[in-house]
Formats: sequence, C-alpha cells, structure tokens
Amino acid sequence: MKKVSLKDIATEAGVSTALVSYVLTNKDKKARIGEEMAKKIREIARKLNYQPNHIARSLKSGRSFTIGLIVADISNPFFANIARTIEDEAKKHNYNVIFGSSDENVDKSQDLINVLVNRQVDGLIITPTEGSEQQIRQLQEQKIPFVLIDRFFPEIAASYIAVNNRESAAGAVSHLIKAGRKRIGMVAYKTTLHHISERIGGYQDALQQHGIKATNSLLKKARYSHLKEDIRLAIDELLKGKHPADAIFFATNSLAIEGLKYINTLGIRIPDDLAVITFDEGEALDLFYAPVTFVRQPILEIGKAAVRVLLEQILDGTTTTTAICIDTTLVVRKSCGSR
Amino acid sequence: MKKVSLKDIATEAGVSTALVSYVLTNKDKKARIGEEMAKKIREIARKLNYQPNHIARSLKSGRSFTIGLIVADISNPFFANIARTIEDEAKKHNYNVIFGSSDENVDKSQDLINVLVNRQVDGLIITPTEGSEQQIRQLQEQKIPFVLIDRFFPEIAASYIAVNNRESAAGAVSHLIKAGRKRIGMVAYKTTLHHISERIGGYQDALQQHGIKATNSLLKKARYSHLKEDIRLAIDELLKGKHPADAIFFATNSLAIEGLKYINTLGIRIPDDLAVITFDEGEALDLFYAPVTFVRQPILEIGKAAVRVLLEQILDGTTTTTAICIDTTLVVRKSCGSR
Repeated sequence: MKKVSLKDIATEAGVSTALVSYVLTNKDKKARIGEEMAKKIREIARKLNYQPNHIARSLKSGRSFTIGLIVADISNPFFANIARTIEDEAKKHNYNVIFGSSDENVDKSQDLINVLVNRQVDGLIITPTEGSEQQIRQLQEQKIPFVLIDRFFPEIAASYIAVNNRESAAGAVSHLIKAGRKRIGMVAYKTTLHHISERIGGYQDALQQHGIKATNSLLKKARYSHLKEDIRLAIDELLKGKHPADAIFFATNSLAIEGLKYINTLGIRIPDDLAVITFDEGEALDLFYAPVTFVRQPILEIGKAAVRVLLEQILDGTTTTTAICIDTTLVVRKSCGSR
Repeated sequence: MKKVSLKDIATEAGVSTALVSYVLTNKDKKARIGEEMAKKIREIARKLNYQPNHIARSLKSGRSFTIGLIVADISNPFFANIARTIEDEAKKHNYNVIFGSSDENVDKSQDLINVLVNRQVDGLIITPTEGSEQQIRQLQEQKIPFVLIDRFFPEIAASYIAVNNRESAAGAVSHLIKAGRKRIGMVAYKTTLHHISERIGGYQDALQQHGIKATNSLLKKARYSHLKEDIRLAIDELLKGKHPADAIFFATNSLAIEGLKYINTLGIRIPDDLAVITFDEGEALDLFYAPVTFVRQPILEIGKAAVRVLLEQILDGTTTTTAICIDTTLVVRKSCGSR
C-alpha cells in the first residue's frame, strides 16, 4: 500500500502541503486559520489513514531519538572508546549518537552545544572543558537534559558519571611506594578542572600516608596547548640533579605516552632506572617494552551509566540529579618493577 | 535593544506564534490562510524590524553551517585523527562538524546518514562501509552534497579523497624484499572494500616484480567482527611449519596492533625473527620496542581536501565529481631490520 503523504491530503483538501503540515502538527487552538478548514484537513487525514512519518512525529513529540555527545578530544583513545561505548549503549535503546570534540576549548564547546541543541538532540552527554560552568548552567536554565562524564563542577548540582579520582591516584602512588620507590614525581595538566586536582590530591595523600614529604619540585604541570614541550621540560627537571625521581605518576594516558616517547630518547630504562604508572589505558601502553601499570577506568560502565541517567531524564522526565562515582582498578604490569 | 521575537509579532497581531512562524517562513503563495491576515503579520514584522534568528534563517536558507562526518570506527586512531583534522579544517570555514561511527556496519551507516540528514547538515563526509553502495546512490538522487574518504566504490561516480593504496602497498612490500626477506606474509581484512583489495593487489604486484611467487598460504584475511581470533589463527599459520614467514605486511594499524600483541606473547623478536611493516600510523607502533615501519597516510591533507571538495559542492553548488588520490610516505624504522 502506498504511504499517504501530506501532499495527498493537500490535493484532496485543495490547500497547500505546508498548510496541512501546519494543521496536523500544531495543537495550538488559538490559531486563526479557520476552524472549518482545519477540521476538514483533519478529517481527510483520518479518512486516508495518514501515518505521520518519523521526522514529523519527532517534530511533534519534540523527540529526535538522538543523543549529542561532546568529548574533550576525539583523538584521545580514552574519549574515542567512551564515544564508542555510548554509541553501542544508546543503540540498544534505539537512540542514535552524534558527537563533536571540544578540543578542551571553551568556545568550541559552546559552538558544539549550540549546534547539537539546534539540531534538536533529545539530550547531551558532555565532557565539560575548563571554564564551561556558564554553558552548563545555561543548559539547566533551558531545561535541556544532560549528563556530565569524566569531569564535573563541584559547585554545580548536575548529574554526572565519574570515577573516584582521588582514591585511585592514591592507590597508584601507594603501589609505587610499596615497590620501593622513594622519590615519586607526578606529571599532570595545568588546569583548574576538578578531576585533575583530585588526582594531584590523591598523589599527595599517598605520600603523606607513608610519611613522605610532598615537594613541589616533584609535581609538574603541562599545558594542554603546549603538551610536548612542557612534558619534555617536566621530565628533564624530574630526572636532573643529584637526587632524580625514581618513579613518575602520569595523570592521564596522553601525558604518559608523550612522556614515554621522550624518556625513550634519553636511553632511560623502565623499570630499572625509572618506574612509571599512569591513569588510563592505551594500546601504546600495552605494546611498550615494559607494559605500563595503569589505573583502569571502567569505560563500559561509565558509558552505560551515562546513557541510562540521560534517558531517565529524557523519557521519564526525571529532574533529580544523579551523581555516580565508579571505582577503578589498578592493573599491575612491568613498568614499576618489583623491588 | 531587545531582539524582536515571533511572540512579539504574534501578540501585536493577536494570533498564535506558530501562525506567525508559518507566515514568515513560508513562501507558499497558495496557502489558504487568508491573505489579509498574512499581510498584516508581515507588516507588523516589518514595523517591529524583526530579524529572523540563525536557526530560522538556517531553516529558510537551507544552510545549517554544519557538516556531518561518518567514520568507520571512532575508536581507531586513524579515524579519530581524521575526525580531528576535519573539525579543525571546517572550523576555519565557520563550519561545525558532528559525527558518528558506523562500526563497519551497513545498517548503522544508514541510521547515521538518516540522523545527520534529518538533523539538516549541509553535507556529509563519509567513510563508506562494505555494502553501502545503495546508500551512496540514494544521497546522489537526493542531491545531498557528500564526499567519500579513505574508501570509494569504483563503479559509483562520486567525489572522493583516497590514497594510492596499490602503489603504497607495493612500496612497503618491496622494502621488505630489499631488506632481504624471502617469505612475506600479509594480513588483511576479509572484505570486498576496494581499498583493501588494492592493498592486496599491491602486495602481489611487488612479489611478482621481484620474481617471487605469491602463494595463497601467505595471504591471510581476518573478519572485522572476529578480529582477535582470526589474527591469532593467521599468525599461527604464517609462522608454523618448516618454512615460516620471515616478514608480515599488515593492511591496517588495527591489524598490526592486534598482531603485535599476539606476536609478543609468542616470544618472537622483531625484527630478528620476523620483520613487520604496516599501513597507517599509531602511538602504539611508535612505543613498540622496535618502532614499526609504516605507510603514512597524509591525514591532514585528506581532511583538508575533504572539507574543500565538500564546501565547493555546498557553497558553490558544484556538481562535478572530484576524485583526489594522494601519495603516501614510507616511514622506515626498526621493525624491518636491515639485513
């Protein structure tokens, strides 16, 4: 059977297709279109057994069955894998995912939010960039469903899925201490983002718990925009002098990979000369000659929880905020030795 | 000055906002809405100096200043980096990019095309999946601007950006032959996609040019859906028997990384026991103890060309197809030795 289109109804009623569309998608009773004409159009639609198509229905219900995802950097495997997981999970609920990458840039983040909201996504999953608080607050004011992942702003009450960054970092550093390392450096990002502050906090907690004084000279921060040069400088400073660091804790996989590339050029052997541990996994860390011990974030769980919490908002109209904090796992391999 | 909204006009005219929107965005003269009312609404809009907002203007002009990008697998660094490059390039032209990952699945590809087209992107950049010919032809019929990247269908005249797969593969295999390798295996995907067939063709070309007989027992194909197990089987078969392979050419970085993970567990040393060469780069290949020699695809050039060719279609209305084939570079490192 041929599908009945708006055009069929329009032809029968002797009006424009646009007018039919207007009448059938609009519940506004105040419209001064002439109730008689509106009634006629509705009757013809019923008679012809008109079935609105998916797009029309989407426009009517305000649902597009699409989730917008904004990650910090799609070229980082952590985010690429999160994106993949969210896609797979959304698919189970008949939702599509379209995404964009903010490149840790607050303007680009705003652009992407606008693009996705204007493209009528039903809700957003966002890795917020530094300084994007206002964008998040605006989404709340606009009552657009959203969930933050990986990071959140402690001062904003919004749903988020994150890991226990502080405890995980403390666990990683304790592992280095138990493996006999005495001078443990850390390389983090220079950022005000809460999750990085927490990882630094965890590093300091672990040192303190084991009676080691945390010195600023062993804590290095690289700018996202000058990653390569800042990491080289950081590692040079950590490894120089009479008492060089005997271990480095990297706050993310990107930092670890850039760091290891540089460490390789210096002829420093892992773990004999230097123990290395990092947050996040990565194939590069698996294939390294001393596979790197790392804090595994449960990417699958994060993705599933993000989709579930978002759909509760979209489909059930839930307005309560849900904050989920998931445990990580320390995956011990060769890069910390065992002395 | 406060921006004049549709609601302001509606209030002044004493009609619904929806009706104002209908009148102002509709050029359809046949609409039986009452020309007097339509005229009144237009006059009020003029009087209040109404400026349609960006979304309204987008809907009207048919431009959303957004490109849709469909990659094969966002968790593959090759595609993640392509996505990043296309974003950066589009941004220079004030275009945003939203993307999705087809996971090499033809149904998911169709879903994503629908989602992006329904979300009114101005055009698409697509890595077509196996079996998606009909989807591509449909885009042509719908006159939706698009450019294919990485792959294309020789039987469909459509704009694409690709590399010279056959020559590049031949160059890689010739490099192995010149390095003294005699029994060169290849691991590819089991697919009808043209770019993989070309890489296999290049492998066979090089063997033939050097008077080596290409045997099927040295050419292995892994299913995308069973990557890990098929690669293990392939490598087991290549390395068994009295005359094991002394080199392997991997058709993509994913194949190489999975392959090297397994080769590591076998205690086989690269390049002494086995030379390895691959298409595509990857941080995992950089950090491997014998950094892997690879065919570098010019990701930046591919991304730039894709955006340029697409915008020619969108902005200039170009309807001629543009096929661009870019040269690759062989980056020689330690994994092929030098004997």
